[in-house]
Amino acid sequence: MERHFVQEFEALKTQLLQMGGRAESIIGKAIEALKRRDPALAKIVIEDDRAIDRLEIEIEERCVELLALQQPLASDLRFITASMKISNDLERVGDHGVNIAGSAIKLSAEPELKPLVDIPRMATLAAGMLREALDTFVRRDADRARQLVKRDDEVDALNRQLFRELISYMIEDPRSITRAMELVLVARNLERVADLATNIAEEVVFIAEARIIKHHAEQGAEGQRLGVPTPAREDDFGRT
Amino acid sequence: MERHFVQEFEALKTQLLQMGGRAESIIGKAIEALKRRDPALAKIVIEDDRAIDRLEIEIEERCVELLALQQPLASDLRFITASMKISNDLERVGDHGVNIAGSAIKLSAEPELKPLVDIPRMATLAAGMLREALDTFVRRDADRARQLVKRDDEVDALNRQLFRELISYMIEDPRSITRAMELVLVARNLERVADLATNIAEEVVFIAEARIIKHHAEQGAEGQRLGVPTPAREDDFGRT
Repeated sequence: MERHFVQEFEALKTQLLQMGGRAESIIGKAIEALKRRDPALAKIVIEDDRAIDRLEIEIEERCVELLALQQPLASDLRFITASMKISNDLERVGDHGVNIAGSAIKLSAEPELKPLVDIPRMATLAAGMLREALDTFVRRDADRARQLVKRDDEVDALNRQLFRELISYMIEDPRSITRAMELVLVARNLERVADLATNIAEEVVFIAEARIIKHHAEQGAEGQRLGVPTPAREDDFGRT
Repeated sequence: MERHFVQEFEALKTQLLQMGGRAESIIGKAIEALKRRDPALAKIVIEDDRAIDRLEIEIEERCVELLALQQPLASDLRFITASMKISNDLERVGDHGVNIAGSAIKLSAEPELKPLVDIPRMATLAAGMLREALDTFVRRDADRARQLVKRDDEVDALNRQLFRELISYMIEDPRSITRAMELVLVARNLERVADLATNIAEEVVFIAEARIIKHHAEQGAEGQRLGVPTPAREDDFGRT
């Protein structure tokens, strides 16, 4: 590898990690705004998302440039195409943060439905998965990435549990419907963040081994053994 | 361009159009299953999604191969990286189809809440946007793509209207809550399909003009003039 190429590669990694850090922090901040019922903090989240959007554009440009000027082969080529996908996933995480911030703003104007316990727990899990996914990416650690994919089930289970609980609130007191629905959507956004972290982990396995584990259904016993979750990553509540 | 390269390029386009056709049809079928309360048809949707997943893997492999062997430059390079993104978007459309099919299965086991009017309308709009987006892509027609981006607002408006209506059902009759919630999620999935079509249209503008319109907020008046929607593409109900 040329020296210039090595530098460009390192710069790409650094920028992706930076974007990952911002994506993780936006989720933490949005949930904090929801817990504290703080619309001012929620508005900061919306600002923060702009910086994530800018980073996505920069990373995409850097990748296209690397492809055009360096014409990399084999695993470097896969690393670059995966970087583009991952930065797209991180951009979506930012969007989920904005959605949660929107819910925080709405809910701060209404009486509190209940103290939040499971939602912050889901947020911590999802943000942790995101950090771990980025870390396995820059280390090209397919084994840890494969472990991470399994953790998505935990978030899905919490999401389903919360969904049932919120439905029972709605049935008990119809005045709670709008607020409970808003919390359902918050949980749904967090579940999607965990899915996106799972996407990233799957990319890591892909670039490390040039083997796709995403759609294990077609791969028979091999995919099954890897313990990969069901293909419908954007699955809704209560079905797996 | 070498002759072989031209052929490979045409094959990539054909495969993307084929995948787009399947993505469009899966949404139509899922909504049909919901309308007809037909769990058998819903199960076919889940099978169909496997074929879409396989196409995504094939397209990704083809793109990586084109990048590695042909080392394309400029607009061809952008076309290939955009193809990877678009096939990822189409794979997500398939997942939304599966989610809707899951709702169709659940709802077919319960009494009908109300005859569906707006949901099939949303589905027709979203599927039409998808078809149009793919068409602008293979024709590299940035002008039509830019027009398409605006149509997303119509789907968002329908989604918000439906959301309010379903909330009022829930308040009136708490026994309808679970079913109404399921329909909220169906509408949410359709709204996401329209967002994904919008993503594709944005990619078309990007590869045609090498200009990113996705995050117009940073671009000031220029982006505004283009009439690009708000950055939070995964926005939830009722906020734009």
